[in-house]
Parts: sequence; C-alpha cells; structure tokens
Amino acid sequence: MIRAAAGRAKGHVRKTPLLSSPFLDEVAGRRVFVKAECLQHTGSFKFRGGWSALSGLSRAARAAGVLAYSSGNHAQGVALAARLHGVPATIIMPADAPPLKISNTKAYGAEVILYDRAGGASREEVGAHMQAARGLTLIRPYDEPLVIAGQGTCGLEIAAQLAALGVTSGEMLTCCGGGGLTAGIALALAEQAPEIRVRPVEPVGFDDTVRSLVSGRIERNTGPESGYWDAILTPSPGQQTFPILQSLCGPGLVVTEAETRAAIRLAFERLKLVAEPGGAVALAAALFHGTELKGDAVGVTLSGGNVDRTAFATVLAEAN
Amino acid sequence: MIRAAAGRAKGHVRKTPLLSSPFLDEVAGRRVFVKAECLQHTGSFKFRGGWSALSGLSRAARAAGVLAYSSGNHAQGVALAARLHGVPATIIMPADAPPLKISNTKAYGAEVILYDRAGGASREEVGAHMQAARGLTLIRPYDEPLVIAGQGTCGLEIAAQLAALGVTSGEMLTCCGGGGLTAGIALALAEQAPEIRVRPVEPVGFDDTVRSLVSGRIERNTGPESGYWDAILTPSPGQQTFPILQSLCGPGLVVTEAETRAAIRLAFERLKLVAEPGGAVALAAALFHGTELKGDAVGVTLSGGNVDRTAFATVLAEAN
Repeated sequence: MIRAAAGRAKGHVRKTPLLSSPFLDEVAGRRVFVKAECLQHTGSFKFRGGWSALSGLSRAARAAGVLAYSSGNHAQGVALAARLHGVPATIIMPADAPPLKISNTKAYGAEVILYDRAGGASREEVGAHMQAARGLTLIRPYDEPLVIAGQGTCGLEIAAQLAALGVTSGEMLTCCGGGGLTAGIALALAEQAPEIRVRPVEPVGFDDTVRSLVSGRIERNTGPESGYWDAILTPSPGQQTFPILQSLCGPGLVVTEAETRAAIRLAFERLKLVAEPGGAVALAAALFHGTELKGDAVGVTLSGGNVDRTAFATVLAEAN
Repeated sequence: MIRAAAGRAKGHVRKTPLLSSPFLDEVAGRRVFVKAECLQHTGSFKFRGGWSALSGLSRAARAAGVLAYSSGNHAQGVALAARLHGVPATIIMPADAPPLKISNTKAYGAEVILYDRAGGASREEVGAHMQAARGLTLIRPYDEPLVIAGQGTCGLEIAAQLAALGVTSGEMLTCCGGGGLTAGIALALAEQAPEIRVRPVEPVGFDDTVRSLVSGRIERNTGPESGYWDAILTPSPGQQTFPILQSLCGPGLVVTEAETRAAIRLAFERLKLVAEPGGAVALAAALFHGTELKGDAVGVTLSGGNVDRTAFATVLAEAN
C-alpha cells in the first residue's frame, strides 16, 4: 500500500530534503539527519496522508465529498488534497486550534466547522453526524490504512536518503500523536532499511504511546487535552497504528517544553527551518536525550511548521 | 566551467528544493517558484562558490591556505569548504557584521580578522597585505571565475527543476550584491533555459547594478556602505560579473525595506523558511513588483538565511 501511495503521489507530493548541520551534530554528540516535512505542501507531512486518501478513494466516494476532524495539520492536508481533486471537503476543528491553521484550512477551500473542545464535545460524534447527514467519506487522521500508507511514503524517502549517505543502521525518531506517521515510517523502514529502528517521541504529559509501548496495551492520557504541542496531542495511540508500533518500534522518548523550545531555536538557527512545537519533539530528543539513544547517527522527522508568527517570535526571543 | 563545478560539487553541495505556495501565488498574481538556497550548507548559496574555488585550486595553492573577505556568507562558505578540504582559511570581516555570521565563521575553523568598516579601512587592502605576508590564495567573493562557476551550479538546478514543472520561459529574479550568483545563474540559464531571462534585484539605496545596467557602465553606490541587507551591500557590480550581466540579464528591480520585511514574513508563514534581509529581496520583487514583470510564472532565489534570532523575531512581530 505504501508503494502504491508513492506511485499516486508522484508529481503531487514533495520529496522533502534530509538536512543536517555540524552545529546540531555537536549538540547531539552524533550525526543528526532531519527530514524536513515542514517543507511539504500545507506545511506538514499530513498532506501525504491526505493525498493518499483522496487519490485512493473510489471515484463515487470521492465525488460525494470528504470529511475530516483535526486540530489543523490533517485539516489542511485533506483540504488541499480535496481541492486538487476538485472535491468538497468539510473539516471539523477545535475552536482553540491555532488561528493560522484554521484560516489556512478555509483558504484551501474547505468548509470549516468549529467545535468547543473545552465544553466536552467529542469531535468523533460531531463527525459521525456530519458524515451521515451529507453522505461524506470520513478521512480519519491516523486510523485509516490509506492515510498510514501515505505517511509511509515519507519513510521510503528517508530510507533512500539515509542509504545515499551511507547510513543503513541506527535509530529514526518520529514526532508521535496518533501514530500515523510513526506507523507509516516504521512499515517502510522495516522493508527498506530493516536495521534502522523507529522510536516515537512525545511531549511530557502526553506520553500515551510511550506508556502503551511499555505496558503492551493502549494507554490514555489523563491530563488536559490541549497544550503547547497542538499537532500531536491525541488521547491515545490508534487501534490500527498501535499494533504496528508495538511490533516494529523501539522504546519511546519523552521531551519537555523547554527542550522543544530549544529545538525550535536550533532548527531556526542551524537549518533555517520553521518548526512548530509538535513538529520539533523528535529533534529535541535527538539533541537532548542522547544518552537514551544508540549509534553514531540518528534520523528525526521535523514534521510540521504551522506556527503563528507571534508564538514563534516569543520562542526566538528567549535566551538559550 | 559551471558543468565542471557541478561535477566537483556532487555529494558535497546540496541540491536545494524549488518551493512554492498557493498563498504566495495569490499575492504575486502569478506562480512563484522559490529556490531555497538558505537550505544550502552554511545557510546560503555562497558554499557553492566556496566549494568550487577550493576544489578547483591547484593542490599546491590549496595547501598554502586561502583568504577571503566577506560580510559573512562568503566567509562561511569559504571557511567550511576549506575545513572540508583540510586547508587553513583566513577570513577578513567587518567588525559590524551580524554576530551569528562571525561566530559561525570561527566555528567552521577559520581564523577571523575583523576590520573597522566605518573607519574607512579597505578590506581589499587588508586582504592584499595578508595575502602577501602568508602566501595565501585570495578567494574573491564574486570577481573570480571559479566562484561564479560554483554559483552557476544553482542555475543548472533551477533550469532542471523549472523544466520538470513545465516552466521553460519567463523571468528569474536573483538577489544581487556583487553579481556572482546573478552571473552564474544567467550563464547556466543561457544554455539550459534560454527563454528564461535573469533579472537582478537590489535594495533601495544600493541599486548600483540596476543603474549600471541602465547606463551601460559600472556605477557605484554613493550612500552608506552598511545597512539592513548586509549580505548584498557591495559598492558596485564586479569587473568580471558586470559584462556577463550586461550581456545576459534583463532590467533590474529595486525593493524597499518594508517590502523585504513583508517578504521575510511570508517566507516564514508560507514556505517555513528563514530568509535573511539580503536573501529576501528577489522574493519581495516577485510579490510586490508584479507590474514590472512578464509572464505567468516567475522564479526567485531565496539566497540566504543567516539572520540573528532577535532581528528575525522583530520582523515577525510586526503587523503586515
């Protein structure tokens, strides 16, 4: 399915560069290779899954339109993929999502429906209602094989790019929310680079996947549902993604907000890339959790860059 | 020479992506393709010229060491290229260059000698003295065929990347200081994409090349030698670059500081790229000088991203 998704993606999904900097290598104590998915269309890897899903639907299902719920990056990925397929998209977003993500999703032509996350509304319930009422096809953000396959195209690129640099073993750290990107990359590497082990990275307080990998069953976060890393704050790993993670991934890592902010500053200064909080956790782990890693080289996803200007300026202005 | 430089660059110089965003297209009123040279090693296209020069020197000349004078990007490009060749580099920089550029140049292992630009010291004089005293080979920032050829490798990539998108005619806007990048790209496109015309872009008050193209002879800037766009504030086009520009380029364009700052914000928001002032002028021209352009597509170089965090944060925090 990943290879098929890569075939459908050709000419539509960007092959993003794998970047590095001697300054980052020095901080990390090993070579660090950064998959710059913030340069993907819509500013995050989510366009891969959105394109895969839209291009993989039957013609009839596609024509009726699609539905997605998302804090913002899946929203944009599905919205642009739908527009490029000439199909209507309805996107359900939390009212407190970053303003840039909401305005972009609308600008890609989607109908955006906001719901009150703090008020206890379930986005799944809102989505099910819309789906039935309009005959839409729901594009789940991670528990959907077409979406996982789309994210897996990122893994195919990583395997080829690392091999071209002579790196065929080591660890690949992924920013992990529901596990779609992590599962997709893990599946791709299992075949294309079996000596490279994927390890999911989550922020402190939202380490559901890390704990699930330890306990061997799906664990949930018990704290607040919103926070600094808006892109990856899912309550638990997915029903479809977790078994893949469990079978293919190494132990997860947990990073702090201070580590994330320092990683954002270093990505700015050393890679000239804009990283959003949820997209910077894997880099933070590579830079500041070196003692938990193995090998002389590590790969990371920098999975998105959709952050408001004022929030980014605040991080930049902080001392290191 | 450009093809030879590309051969020597293989595996050492990054092939940078050509990026776009529907949001930028909307602002510009045409399709805009951005050559992201801020993602090049050392954060600017100057590593291309530095690598070309170091790899193109005779073994004996290289072994004796190299010298460069630069406000910062050529400094870093030569410093890293020298380090990767195992050769000592001496770099003469103005004392008021951006701190990040000075500290990076030192971190790449070069010996940095600062001079007082305001005090009237000529960097050429300082350089000539060092050259004679130490037997170093001077790597000029633009009036050097090996350097122009190195920058030209960027043009070969642009021609291929635009052709892959079906764009074989139109205009290519370049950020222009001494004219090394502009001349290199113009030479490459003249052969590889002869229907694409290069047009240099300069900031207001530093439009020596624009005026030189009008008058047909090398004109000099008469105002201050330093300013917002530190990377491209050369006093006049080069003796070697100007004839190339004169024979191959269309009329130049001039942008304001406000336009540059708006372009930096849009590159942040829409491309997830960090642009420095001198690296953003071509994008500014594409976005805000559309009436002076022809065709439904335009290419631009985003030629560097070496900007201090506090300066960048200030631009981000401004209203549009």
